[in-house]
Amino acid sequence: MNESNPTAAIVVIGNEILSGRTQDTNVRYLARRLAELGIALREVRMIPDEREVIAGTVNALRAAYDYVFTTGGIGPTHDDITSESIAAAFGVPWEPHPEAWALLSKHYPPGEFNAARQRMATMPRGAELIPNPISVAPGFAIGNVFVMAGVPRIMQAMFEALVPRLRRGTPILQKAVHARGLIEGRLAEGLAAIQARYPELDIGSYPYYRESGSGVAVVAKGTDQKAIDAALEEVAALIESLGTSPIPGEPPL
Amino acid sequence: MNESNPTAAIVVIGNEILSGRTQDTNVRYLARRLAELGIALREVRMIPDEREVIAGTVNALRAAYDYVFTTGGIGPTHDDITSESIAAAFGVPWEPHPEAWALLSKHYPPGEFNAARQRMATMPRGAELIPNPISVAPGFAIGNVFVMAGVPRIMQAMFEALVPRLRRGTPILQKAVHARGLIEGRLAEGLAAIQARYPELDIGSYPYYRESGSGVAVVAKGTDQKAIDAALEEVAALIESLGTSPIPGEPPL
Repeated sequence: MNESNPTAAIVVIGNEILSGRTQDTNVRYLARRLAELGIALREVRMIPDEREVIAGTVNALRAAYDYVFTTGGIGPTHDDITSESIAAAFGVPWEPHPEAWALLSKHYPPGEFNAARQRMATMPRGAELIPNPISVAPGFAIGNVFVMAGVPRIMQAMFEALVPRLRRGTPILQKAVHARGLIEGRLAEGLAAIQARYPELDIGSYPYYRESGSGVAVVAKGTDQKAIDAALEEVAALIESLGTSPIPGEPPL
Repeated sequence: MNESNPTAAIVVIGNEILSGRTQDTNVRYLARRLAELGIALREVRMIPDEREVIAGTVNALRAAYDYVFTTGGIGPTHDDITSESIAAAFGVPWEPHPEAWALLSKHYPPGEFNAARQRMATMPRGAELIPNPISVAPGFAIGNVFVMAGVPRIMQAMFEALVPRLRRGTPILQKAVHARGLIEGRLAEGLAAIQARYPELDIGSYPYYRESGSGVAVVAKGTDQKAIDAALEEVAALIESLGTSPIPGEPPL
């Protein structure tokens, strides 16, 4: 891809993911946005609400990548332990954050800024707030780690608010072509030859099985639009040579 | 939870996940089935189609957990490199698997068992096949690692076929109650007290925002149905004491 693009990892924190209660959708949202921003998403980890695991995972990933994005575990309940675990990871005190405290104490009616809600204004020392336009309680950034809520629309709002802080790279573009009735095993050899001619691209082949029909989609990904267009033209010609019709774009759902 | 239950990790392999092209759904399926089987899912990693990364991740996880399940990257195309990467992880040759070879050479019309398809019959030495009732090309098990396809219905069929090989634990049960119009910050203190009285359970609180209404769902998870029922009765009473109506089960979608 592009060697100078920043790299990133996502940590999805929550027992509800590992129990299968909740279908994560934050990874896909972040993956697409990071590609647009030219930030290479290298790895995702989904882990339980456990302090040692959260701290260990965040420490491993913040050393390995330019950015770490976490989702989940910053609410007011007993199972929301991401914030104190991040403080442990950085070896700093977990303490009232003056700005967050002011924000939340003003937000709640008198007497309702209770101990549970005060937890949401308690952060690792040195944290910088990430605004939450949906439900007020902020996320935060510390070092190269960005700590966001798990609820998708809050997570999305927080991410968009923190985007200006990120160093961007060359946007990672992708383009697809698909063919109904085509089987990967017939396409494979020709496709490998095309990939070999475009080493700067990442060409993937994905069979699909839909009610509207089955087939194969081929996706070319990279930072050079001209190379992507040229490679996909070769893929379309290959599909045609196998007796099927290339159709631009992804297959319909 | 239950200390004697086997543990597991999932590795989702594929650039299409990290680019946001594809929404993973395999994690949720496996998470639910593993809970039913009494196998504790401890971690999920999503990684690219890169040999060193796949081998390194699988080696780290197979040493840490009883079972490792991988999805993706076992098709016939150039980007399907999971099988050879697993061979590298185990330090064994990647070679034609006699049983898989016989299966696939019989399946394709004469002359169509081409080089690309032969890759799907090439496996780490010592691999045992996992049958694929959907599209023939098998997955495989080696040591405590189970290698499955990425296409959800094929992955599901492979997983169900390998279930008899797994050691089961005490099934992990869960039960939910929810309340519309309730806010987590009001529930948190009482909920923490209930969690403290049921240390053997994992009680989670999840705000929801649906078109049908917003509120909070509380989920109790564990291996003791009686404890789950008792804890949820206490949660229901707590919800009632806050002036909202507890509704059994998860909120409607």
